[in-house]
Amino acid sequence: MERQREPARRPGGRAARVRAAVHQAVADLAGDRGYGNFTVGDVAARAGVADTSIYRRWGNLEALLSDVAITRLTMTSPTPDTGSLEGDLRTYAATAARDVAGPDGMAILRLALSLSNSGQPGLEARDAFLAERTRQLQAMLDRARDRGEHPPDVLQVLDLILSPMYIRILFGTGPLTPAYTDELVDRLLCLHTAAGEE
Amino acid sequence: MERQREPARRPGGRAARVRAAVHQAVADLAGDRGYGNFTVGDVAARAGVADTSIYRRWGNLEALLSDVAITRLTMTSPTPDTGSLEGDLRTYAATAARDVAGPDGMAILRLALSLSNSGQPGLEARDAFLAERTRQLQAMLDRARDRGEHPPDVLQVLDLILSPMYIRILFGTGPLTPAYTDELVDRLLCLHTAAGEE
Repeated sequence: MERQREPARRPGGRAARVRAAVHQAVADLAGDRGYGNFTVGDVAARAGVADTSIYRRWGNLEALLSDVAITRLTMTSPTPDTGSLEGDLRTYAATAARDVAGPDGMAILRLALSLSNSGQPGLEARDAFLAERTRQLQAMLDRARDRGEHPPDVLQVLDLILSPMYIRILFGTGPLTPAYTDELVDRLLCLHTAAGEE
Repeated sequence: MERQREPARRPGGRAARVRAAVHQAVADLAGDRGYGNFTVGDVAARAGVADTSIYRRWGNLEALLSDVAITRLTMTSPTPDTGSLEGDLRTYAATAARDVAGPDGMAILRLALSLSNSGQPGLEARDAFLAERTRQLQAMLDRARDRGEHPPDVLQVLDLILSPMYIRILFGTGPLTPAYTDELVDRLLCLHTAAGEE
């Protein structure tokens, strides 16, 4: 996701330090004010860098927000590789439940709502965020197919595992217990089998 | 949902006019500024009533917001009564798809996020909102049971029909076509049958 338009740089060099400072500034501002309530100028001031450094690297605020969210999710919740589709889905659901129930879960919903309301750059940033998460999940499902298993598609995982978790937390209709997250996986496997694709 | 703490009043009387003006003011302010960005004072000024009239009737801003949302949803999307569980579920899903894809869908998500972030009064208002929608949906499912059918429970309808719609619109992963909403109902009926409850 890192958009390096310049020649390769040493890791840990100035570019990496700027990136870390900018990411931290976004996380702080999102926590303090919420998405939609700060500008590139605010981020630059908090990170101690020039506005132009941010525009040059990310293009606009929306792309920066999306980059921060995807980097964070990818670091804290890489897609699993347990050796079986069912194992991967159960681990994935358990990790997602932890993320969705924590502060990052509401932050992702707030970010998505904010981006949906930010015109074309917002929609593009939202799509970039989703494309990256989809790519990671697709790689997990492709590994299952390579083993000779018959995985569901990404949208089925979104509909049957992630969506109920987000809405359940948002509307407070129940905790994401291990039994519940396992039930979500059971439903996905059951429907997938019923559809004759297994 | 109307909290009438005073003796019965004539419909169309002053209380009804105040209620209509306050509801309209909330809708206008939510559209202009978004949830979380206006106060009881703002609503009172816009509606041309005293702050105390609002506090006396609704108690706090969160309860008022929840009342407005539930009134609007109940009016525009009453739960169906077609004479069969499958008919009711298909009509319910089609109506919900229309609501979720329209401005009210994002407004409900914004409201829920805002209430989740407003401390105890917000959580209570969110729960009151959900309890009323649950009550309406439960009545529809109870009618099916009274006919001798074997309906799913409300949380299954939330997980399998409403949640995927909300997240699909929020993340822009696909339109809520009639084929898609029917597929959501098919999944619910299939899982419910597979669970041996039909």
